This record gives sequence, structure tokens and C-alpha cells, in this order.
Amino acid sequence: MAKGISSRADNYAQWYVDIVKRAGLADHSAVRGCMVIKPHGFAIWEKIQGQLDHMFKETGHVNAYFPLFIPKSFLSKEAAHVEGFAKECAVVTHYRLKNAEDGSGVIVDPDAKLEEELIVRPTSETIIWNTYKDWIKSYRDLPLLVNQWANVVRWEMRTRLFLRTSEFLWQEGHTAHATEQEAIEEALRMQDVYATFAEEYMAMPVIRGRKTASERFAGAVETYTIEAMMQDRRALQAGTSHFLGQNFAKAFDVKYLNEENREEYVWATSWGVSTRLVGGLIMTHSDDDGLVLPPKLAPTQVVIVPIPKPDPEIMEVAERIAVELKGNGIKVKIDHDPKKRPGFKFAEYELQGIPVRIGIGKRDLEKGQIEVARRDTKEKTMVDIGQETNFIKDLLENMQKDLFAKALAFQKENTRPADNWEDFTQLLDEGFVSAHWDGTAESEQKIKEKTKATVRCIPNDQQAENGVCVFSGKPSTGRVVFARAY
Amino acid sequence: MAKGISSRADNYAQWYVDIVKRAGLADHSAVRGCMVIKPHGFAIWEKIQGQLDHMFKETGHVNAYFPLFIPKSFLSKEAAHVEGFAKECAVVTHYRLKNAEDGSGVIVDPDAKLEEELIVRPTSETIIWNTYKDWIKSYRDLPLLVNQWANVVRWEMRTRLFLRTSEFLWQEGHTAHATEQEAIEEALRMQDVYATFAEEYMAMPVIRGRKTASERFAGAVETYTIEAMMQDRRALQAGTSHFLGQNFAKAFDVKYLNEENREEYVWATSWGVSTRLVGGLIMTHSDDDGLVLPPKLAPTQVVIVPIPKPDPEIMEVAERIAVELKGNGIKVKIDHDPKKRPGFKFAEYELQGIPVRIGIGKRDLEKGQIEVARRDTKEKTMVDIGQETNFIKDLLENMQKDLFAKALAFQKENTRPADNWEDFTQLLDEGFVSAHWDGTAESEQKIKEKTKATVRCIPNDQQAENGVCVFSGKPSTGRVVFARAY
Repeated sequence: MAKGISSRADNYAQWYVDIVKRAGLADHSAVRGCMVIKPHGFAIWEKIQGQLDHMFKETGHVNAYFPLFIPKSFLSKEAAHVEGFAKECAVVTHYRLKNAEDGSGVIVDPDAKLEEELIVRPTSETIIWNTYKDWIKSYRDLPLLVNQWANVVRWEMRTRLFLRTSEFLWQEGHTAHATEQEAIEEALRMQDVYATFAEEYMAMPVIRGRKTASERFAGAVETYTIEAMMQDRRALQAGTSHFLGQNFAKAFDVKYLNEENREEYVWATSWGVSTRLVGGLIMTHSDDDGLVLPPKLAPTQVVIVPIPKPDPEIMEVAERIAVELKGNGIKVKIDHDPKKRPGFKFAEYELQGIPVRIGIGKRDLEKGQIEVARRDTKEKTMVDIGQETNFIKDLLENMQKDLFAKALAFQKENTRPADNWEDFTQLLDEGFVSAHWDGTAESEQKIKEKTKATVRCIPNDQQAENGVCVFSGKPSTGRVVFARAY
Repeated sequence: MAKGISSRADNYAQWYVDIVKRAGLADHSAVRGCMVIKPHGFAIWEKIQGQLDHMFKETGHVNAYFPLFIPKSFLSKEAAHVEGFAKECAVVTHYRLKNAEDGSGVIVDPDAKLEEELIVRPTSETIIWNTYKDWIKSYRDLPLLVNQWANVVRWEMRTRLFLRTSEFLWQEGHTAHATEQEAIEEALRMQDVYATFAEEYMAMPVIRGRKTASERFAGAVETYTIEAMMQDRRALQAGTSHFLGQNFAKAFDVKYLNEENREEYVWATSWGVSTRLVGGLIMTHSDDDGLVLPPKLAPTQVVIVPIPKPDPEIMEVAERIAVELKGNGIKVKIDHDPKKRPGFKFAEYELQGIPVRIGIGKRDLEKGQIEVARRDTKEKTMVDIGQETNFIKDLLENMQKDLFAKALAFQKENTRPADNWEDFTQLLDEGFVSAHWDGTAESEQKIKEKTKATVRCIPNDQQAENGVCVFSGKPSTGRVVFARAY
């Protein structure tokens, strides 16, 4: 156990907080519920952002930016949306401060009250669809495939760094289509982009599925989700993509002239992932010594540490290796600091989750070798100088694959079928449970009350199978995935 | 004059708005003072952001993210800062809405009043220095070189798209240093980064200088600025870099242990540029036919238009040219749309400011030629097929240089010395004026009242020269730059 980190076995929740803080990823701020994302944490978010942005553009999307504030009345325009979002919001009521007469500081100027209060966006469907009204006139303007990278605020009572904070960073895609089918295809395409990103970049296996009616996004006709299993075997909803039907088009009166010159309402989707993914990344791979990062999302992939300390010969080799690795597109840094001992540095880089560490020592160098250590398994290999670039390229690829394989095996092992209430409640303590449910909101609610578990999703690959609901005993035609979730 | 665009001569202010709207860059939103940045405008901002972010990282900075909200009391901690910023702010007073009893929508829940109001950040010195208190313990933690990309809000009564909006996007660097000299060097380094970016990427010449005491950032000891001349010969403050002394360290009690183990206050800088740069870019180069973009910041650099419409042979040539250009790192798109006529497309791409347009027609193709048109001069050249890649590479480089040279010549022509009040007031109508000023806030204020002109900066390259203030007749030792400004 690294200094200052609780073990997962002892206290999983504390372990998570310790990793986030000790690895320099984020911290609480002076503002309740808001976090500071520290440089190391932000560098990981930048990697996530960069790759997702690339994937969005490859699928035809462009970025834009819409206002931070939403007029209060907009929230009420879509009936289901207002129920879901117009609750815990930050509300701007005034636009000016003035000096207190007693000299004690500044106070809110009562004369500067807004006629209509502004809500700090909890999500942007309303302000965006109000804008789309001006952008969409005819079928030629469709599809409209827009994404926004932004901060949003949902006033949360219980917060956890990255996983649930009052302010968070995210992207929200908002698309408009001429037909229902196109919009459904888009929503599914983005679920697929998210799943591909989670599995190929985060090395985090996910279950693709759709939400039950009661777990849907407020205002959606269908919510597609990707669900991941954390190391405590709880579920993390990692991304959602919504088919919104014509709900927002009707609420904001967005119609287009079709090719036959007839007016029709526009079909919509929205989809988002957030800084919550950083939390998921941490909880999927990290261990009691610190952060473990999949190579594709590691801001620094290789660190070179001179042993016992930098000398000209060692530094020359270090520089040469670094140049070669950089030439192969690998992010590398050399630790020049003569004031810290190698052992201290090793622990520090383990804590920070740098995938590969190269140690260069005098004695090894005489044998023409360097030591290469991988972060996930802690395995060390002596590598002949001249072979290190190929070795490290393979190693990074293998780590990426191994991390995914390990996480996938863990998810499979801890996802079990249950066919009666007793098994169901017992297996819920051990992970995900695949079980029959009668499809009613009532049973779903009762199950939640009794077990704290929710239907994570109706899997995309659900098999037709007759059974009976574990709770009600009523008939069911397929299993859904239950779990306790973040 | 392009359809729907006022001419600069007729109505410069309207010309600007027309360009912004007709080129699809931005629009007003339903929220007073807030704009929507449309995909084309956002793509330009992404180019600006990408290059600046690269330059920040090359100079050793890392990104992080701090809360959107600032506790009201924080603003009061630095005396000058509160005077400058705690005025026109968006104030969050409540954190919940509820359904109105009469069913008319949602209302602010009076029970959800915050104990301390939160201010939507107008700039982040206070929340960041409150955080740095925890990050900085000893000289080993310094320098701390952090940047943040964020949205900020300053409640503006009179707004202009990009140039002055209540919400805008920007970056704000906040650095902490062990010594005064290091901090001053950092502030000057960032002024230099901004000037280099403005001149080499935006092709927008700038005057580097420092602000007078009355024009300084609220809380700064010294504000360094870059000032550009727009086509109406008014000044645009395009970026500022502040040496903050120990003001924020003292306000938030941020001390470090130096190498001699003695506690000292930390020295600070902050620096920022914003989406205002997009406004500056537009006003520096565009003409009465639309946007003109320097090639280095053009999201699309070359557009290929088949004439009169796509046919297999033309499309094959178009595809081949596009592949070749892309292989040379040039951003290119082919316009496949058979529904619009070439003349319409030409006008549209001129409006959008795409630097180079290639027309491929049947008859030219028979002669083995294509037509290449450059946006800035409208010059057209017949280019032999096979030569086009080199021709276009050179053309893009030349356009970049020519745009800068043209803007620089314009700035030089319209910056004149004045040695008496009559010349001064007359020349101010024609551009920048280089004049003697007695260095007092009183004269500065009077000049502003009488002429609406301000001291844009005391130039970095100011020559020692004895003279007398154009206003007061009191002695002065060097000229400063006066202008009316955005």
C-alpha cells in the first residue's frame, strides 16, 4: 500500500478519494460541490476530449457554443424536461453588486434584479432548440449535427470528485433530422461511438443497452446507455444518447419544409459524456499503489529515471532513447531532478499511473541494458539497448489490450443470472445481476426500495427468453441488467 | 457589394454585424448580451485555441480547471480588484426551482436561498489564489504555470458580437513565482506569445506596450498589452498580460518557504485573450464581399468547385487534387452539391472567407488547366495540372504574408505624430496618434472626456524624447499611443 492511500479492501470509497487527491487529479474547492481539476487530471480529460472530438468530427459533427444561461421560462416548455431538470439549479437573480454602506464588503444591489431569472444550464436542449428554430427552415438545412463542449451545473447535495459534482465539464451533442428513422440511427451511432471509445481507449468494457421508461432522460422517447462495472462491482452510467422524438421541436415550434413543400416537425437526438469518465477510468484500473492508466489516454506514457542520479553518460542514453520514442509518437519525459532518490520517484510515478518506467543504471548500462517496468503488473524486464523502442511499442499495445481483457473478465465473472428473489438479492451484493423483470415501473420501484438496485439497462443484445419477474412473478420475455450504481 | 452586406464606407458598424451574421459566425441569443457562436465561427475559435494552447505548452504551461462560481466575499479580498470587477456580475442567489402553485410554470424556491451568494466568474484570480494557498508550500512548488480555458461573464449593457458580450470564452493564465523578476519576465513572455500569435497567425500587426495606471487590470502592478488597428482605424485591445506583484498572494495569504527556509509572499502574473480575437480577425482583413481569413487560421483553406456541375471526369480530377493537397497538410473540401450554380457558390465561399478557390471546368480541363482564385485580391490564375500543389502551397504562404504586410502598412500610414492640441484632435479622427503626455491621470481623463480617445499604451519601444503634453503643456520624456478604442 502506497503512503497515504487506503486499500480497496479496507475502504473502497476512501481509496478512490485518496487516488484522486494523491495522484494530483482533482480537489474540492471553496465552493460547495464544485471541484478543482488539477493539471494531471485535466491532462487526462484533454486526452479524452481530443479523441472524442476526433470521433465526433469523423461522424460528421461540428462544434458550436450556446449561452451558459437559460431563461427560466424555457425550462417549462417541455413538460417532462421541466420535471427532470428544473429542480436543483443555480439561479441567477441579479446582475450587479455594490459596496456595502458599512464598508464591510460588497452586497447584491437590490435595484439590479432581473425581470426573468436565468438558470445556469443543467443541459442545453431548451436554449439550443430555441436557436434551431432560426436555423432550420427546409429539408436542405437537415441533418444538423452539432456538438458543444461546455460546463454545466446541477446542484448536488452529495458530491464525489469527478463522479458527481455540482459543476462538471461535458460535451452535449444536439442533432436535428428530417425523419424519425434518421434520428434513431443517429442516437444509436453515438451510443456506438461512446462504447467504442470506452472499450478501445479507456479499456473499460461496457454493456450497451437502453434505459427503462423511469430511468430515461427527461424529455426523451428512448435513452441509450453504456454501463460499466467498477472494481467494487457497482455500475457507472458512462454515457447516454437520447432519441428525443419531436418533443423539443414541438415545445419550441421547430418545423421544416419537406421536399414536397409540406411543414413537418423536426426529429431530435442529444447525447453526452462528462468528466465523470475520469472517475470511471480511475475506478476501472487503479490499484492500491495508485492510478493505473491505459496507454492511449496517458498524458505521459513513458518516464525515464536515471539511477542513482543523472550523470553525463546516463543522460546521453536517456536523451537518445527519449528522442527515438518521441519519433515513434510516444509521450515520454525524463526525470532530471537530482534532489529526489530513485525509490521516491518510482513510487511517485506508480502513484501517477505512468504506464512504463525506464530505469537507467550504471551497472546495467555496462551490460548494454536498461530496465523497463510496466505499471499494471509491476513486471520488470531487462531490455538490450537498441531494442527498447520496439519493446516499448509492443508493451504499450499489450498493456492497452491486457487492461481491457482484465476488466472484461472481471465484468463477466461478476455478472450472474438470478431466477428467484433470494438469489437476486444475494448476487446483487456481488455484482451485476441478469434477471427477468415484468416491465412495470411499479416492480422496478419496489426492487429499488428493497435492494437499492436499479435496472441499468435492457441490453441491446437481449435474448428472447420466457421467464418470470424475480420480484412479482409475472411473465417476462427477456433478462435485464440490475445493479447498484454510482 | 455582396448581397446583404453593408459597405464599410457606408456603415462600418453595420458592415461588421452583416459579416458576422451572413458568414455564419455568430448570432444574438435569447439571453440578453449572450451570443451563440455558430459552427463556422467556432471552427475559427478552435484554430485560435489550438495554436495558442500549443504555444502555452511550449512555454511550459499546463491546463487546469477552476470553479465557475466565486463566493461573493472572495471578490472583496483584494481592494483594487473588487473595485474593478464586483460591479456588473451575474449573481447566483438560489439553488432550486419549484412548480408554481397556480400551475403557470416554475418559480424560484424561496427556501433555497444561498447563505453566501455566488458570483459567476468575471475572471478567476480570487478563486485560483485561494486554491494556490493549498498548492504552494515551498520554493520547490514554484514556478506554478497554469492556464485555464473557460467561459466568463461580465454583465455588459452595450454588447457587440465577439467584441463585447456578457458571456465570452477565453483563456486565463495564472502563474506563481518565487521572485519579482521571474514574474515580470513571465508577464512579458506572455505578451510576446500573444504578439507573435497575432502577427504570425492572425496576420494582425500589434503595438506592444504597457497600460497607464488608470487603464491597468484591477489588482495589477503593471499591465502589458497588445493593441491592433481595425479598418475603421479604431484600436482593439487584443490581449493583456499582468504583473500582479504580491497583491493576490497577500490577499489570500499565499506564502512559500524559500531556500533559506524563510517565509515569503509569492509573486504573480495573469494573462488572457478571448473570443474577442475573432472580432479582431474579422475587422482586420475582411472586405465588402465578406470574410477574409489568413490561411493559417482558416478552417477550410481551399475549396474545389466543379464548373458548371460535377461530372465523372471533373470529379476525378477534383478528388485527385484534394488528396494531394491533404497530403501536404492543406485543409480542403470539394463542393459536390449539384443543386447550386457555380456563381452562387463562388459568392458564398467569398462570403465565408475561404482563402483559395479552385474552379475546374470542362474547357480548361481540355487545355490541362484549372483556375485558382485567391480570396484577398480576387486575383485568378490558370494553373497547369500537376503544378497546382506547389502553386497553392506558395499562394497560401504569400497570402498569409501579404495580409500581414497590408495590415501593417495600413497601421503605419494611420499612426501619426501630433505635437499640439489642434493636430492631435484632428489626427485622432484619422487613426492612432503618437503624442506627448504629462503622465498624470488628470490629463489622461480630460483628454478622454474631450476626445473619447485613451492612451492605448506606452510602447515597449518608446524612444526617449523631450516634449510637452499635447493637453497640459507640461513636460514629457516620450510619446505614447492615443486612439479611440473598441
